[in-house]
Amino acid sequence: MAEPNNSSLPVNRSTSLLTDMYELTMLEAALRDGTAHREATFEVFARKLPNERRYGVVAGIPRVLEAVRDFYFTEEQLATLDFLSDETVEYLRNFRFSGQIDGFREGELYFPYSPILTVRGTFAECVLLETVVLSILNADSAVATAAARMVTAADGRPIMEMGSRRTHEYAAVTASRAAYLAGFDSTSNLEAAHRYGIPAAGTSAHAWTLLHVDEDGRPDEAGAFRSQIESLGVDTVLLVDTYDVAQGVRTAIDVAGTGLGGVRIDSGDLGSMTRRVRRQLDELGAYNTKVVVSSDLDEFSIAGLRGDPVDSFGVGTSVVTGSGSPTMGMVYKLVEVDGHPVAKRSRGKAMTGGTKRALRTYRSTGTAIEEIVVPFDAADPEVGDADARELTVPLMRDGEIVPDQPTLQESRDYLAGQLVTLPWEGLALSRDEPAITVRFVGFPETARE
Amino acid sequence: MAEPNNSSLPVNRSTSLLTDMYELTMLEAALRDGTAHREATFEVFARKLPNERRYGVVAGIPRVLEAVRDFYFTEEQLATLDFLSDETVEYLRNFRFSGQIDGFREGELYFPYSPILTVRGTFAECVLLETVVLSILNADSAVATAAARMVTAADGRPIMEMGSRRTHEYAAVTASRAAYLAGFDSTSNLEAAHRYGIPAAGTSAHAWTLLHVDEDGRPDEAGAFRSQIESLGVDTVLLVDTYDVAQGVRTAIDVAGTGLGGVRIDSGDLGSMTRRVRRQLDELGAYNTKVVVSSDLDEFSIAGLRGDPVDSFGVGTSVVTGSGSPTMGMVYKLVEVDGHPVAKRSRGKAMTGGTKRALRTYRSTGTAIEEIVVPFDAADPEVGDADARELTVPLMRDGEIVPDQPTLQESRDYLAGQLVTLPWEGLALSRDEPAITVRFVGFPETARE
Repeated sequence: MAEPNNSSLPVNRSTSLLTDMYELTMLEAALRDGTAHREATFEVFARKLPNERRYGVVAGIPRVLEAVRDFYFTEEQLATLDFLSDETVEYLRNFRFSGQIDGFREGELYFPYSPILTVRGTFAECVLLETVVLSILNADSAVATAAARMVTAADGRPIMEMGSRRTHEYAAVTASRAAYLAGFDSTSNLEAAHRYGIPAAGTSAHAWTLLHVDEDGRPDEAGAFRSQIESLGVDTVLLVDTYDVAQGVRTAIDVAGTGLGGVRIDSGDLGSMTRRVRRQLDELGAYNTKVVVSSDLDEFSIAGLRGDPVDSFGVGTSVVTGSGSPTMGMVYKLVEVDGHPVAKRSRGKAMTGGTKRALRTYRSTGTAIEEIVVPFDAADPEVGDADARELTVPLMRDGEIVPDQPTLQESRDYLAGQLVTLPWEGLALSRDEPAITVRFVGFPETARE
Repeated sequence: MAEPNNSSLPVNRSTSLLTDMYELTMLEAALRDGTAHREATFEVFARKLPNERRYGVVAGIPRVLEAVRDFYFTEEQLATLDFLSDETVEYLRNFRFSGQIDGFREGELYFPYSPILTVRGTFAECVLLETVVLSILNADSAVATAAARMVTAADGRPIMEMGSRRTHEYAAVTASRAAYLAGFDSTSNLEAAHRYGIPAAGTSAHAWTLLHVDEDGRPDEAGAFRSQIESLGVDTVLLVDTYDVAQGVRTAIDVAGTGLGGVRIDSGDLGSMTRRVRRQLDELGAYNTKVVVSSDLDEFSIAGLRGDPVDSFGVGTSVVTGSGSPTMGMVYKLVEVDGHPVAKRSRGKAMTGGTKRALRTYRSTGTAIEEIVVPFDAADPEVGDADARELTVPLMRDGEIVPDQPTLQESRDYLAGQLVTLPWEGLALSRDEPAITVRFVGFPETARE
């Protein structure tokens, strides 16, 4: 799985310092008192969905598995851990996770208390993984969940992801990936395109038009358009709002002819603007020239353009920042020790102990009914005449990634298939209860809040 | 500046694919029509502060300079750019930015339309830098700006950054850096601690207490506390809210004695909880045992605890996600071509053309009066008897980072000094106008909105 040396992202790097200090101080104390080798289960779940979203999208599973695989300590890294005893450093010197990971597929929908990921091994080897596992799942799932809402709002019209500039330079790459997983069609980000095989897109910025001035510094929009077409072909998309939109559209068709691929509008009231531009293009005979819009779009403004003649959307800030929910609030909790369920009882943070797996039931029409969580080793629950599907699948065995993991494209298709199983109100954008409930069967009564 | 091979972050990596495709298609078109070699100035600025914040904090400047220095194309990277002509690929093969960068210091305060960064060179070399420059500045400044508000709210009590798990695994590292810049005292993140010299902190999670069960699976909180103290010393902080807080505090002092370093509360109503816990600790004679709180704190909840007996705060999600503003909305715009100011006139996105620099004026008391932006080569404006300070400093010359850049510690001290120059209402947490205004002197009339 080594990657070629042609990226702008880290390769062959240990992930072991992407970790909170307390994981190592706990390890140290556990090695000292003998609890380090207890058999433990940690579980990733979320107590709620942010912003009262109706579903969450699991994203980042392959990245988690790679991060666990690459979790080892080099001598140079060990030298930085001067707060640890020699015994602990010696433990880390030989460290590789050798346990089991089961969990939801990438692209699976999840709800409050879904057992998204289950990590089994010794306490020592599982406790170390908390931070990097959660970082990846929380970040990637936040983007994928927001992106899925935008794809629903766009109602079949393509969306390009173009938000790299509004998030950390590496987070941008994985945000592109998560958006594509959720049904976006392309990305502006070259590293994401290359690394994940996502179609890349993009033509020009306002700077391109502004660059074209005559010797006295007067704007030459026609020159900018002409030059872009000479370089990229008449099928390109011209940005027509640098100066005046109506004039920009006229100039675009003057220069390109009616075969122009598209025009992009990146400012103003996009609804009225697209109607005017569509009318103008039609009057000019450019019936097939597409109207592309961008400018701080989110799922709500996309939905607001449903009746307008928009052919495709460019979305930046809102998708890479999770549209108001930049993280999903997933947690990584110890739920079982040497076969005994454990659970904290902190106020507002109660949970159910024990290792778990989940199934989802469906009507014969394919509509999801509910999610049922059972003890990991329990028999399947009684589901009557509903169809039941196992949500928990093996992901890592004895520290090795289970072979034949789905590709990004397969997970993208999988998610698209799952979204249509939601009861119809589950796809609404408004705040509400989770689309389906999660029922626990076979556990002692608990006080989840 | 090569980094040692002991980190979990990329080293010696080109940043050139952390770029939007349209920068390269514009380059291609510009090489073809001859505009590529025009002398250009691009400027980073923000049209507004998110969430009506009263100031922004510039963060990420050294990271930007390193990213520009490391912006080159390897043969392997060039091979991925199959949408470009041979001529463009040849241009990129030899590419290094060789221009000039001037801008605000890291830790400087900024306001709408402050000329934060000014990049001068050929159009070709400047246009390529847009995405990576903005990614870094937008992400780092969002965290630093949120963190500065939290530091103000904490009113001298220390804050630890512990949000790694709630953001992208690499964004976590630079978020720790930005939070420290803004006055946080420590971080949970080991990579950040090591890479940036930030004090690391952290003791234990609920999992540590839950791990300690007897043979029948019954909780053994005393055992967990005893073991932690044996490993980390009596000066450690015990997490007392896994089961019942009052019992947890009793057990903690039973086990540790009155010399216990601290107790941490991570759930519930922190105000009433800390008062009860402080009273209980005092009754037990543990007068010097500190009360540490965490649990979804942000600047508002920190401010709400101002009258409560909290000794220090742990802040996670809200700081790494910019507390409601995960990005700053900075843009990178062409403002001058071959000596001519240029500016787009898009609705709601107007701007002022021309290369700029900025000064800030102060009363003799040290309080900031206003920011004055002038043409880059203009003489200093008339400021009466106010003190004026140059905000725009040289950062890169002919593609080389200007020597003697400030350390993170120096920038941290600088920001602390700048925050006290704001008019007192400028530090309020509520939404309002920017704390000081930015006035343009020596430019044609413009219609900034």
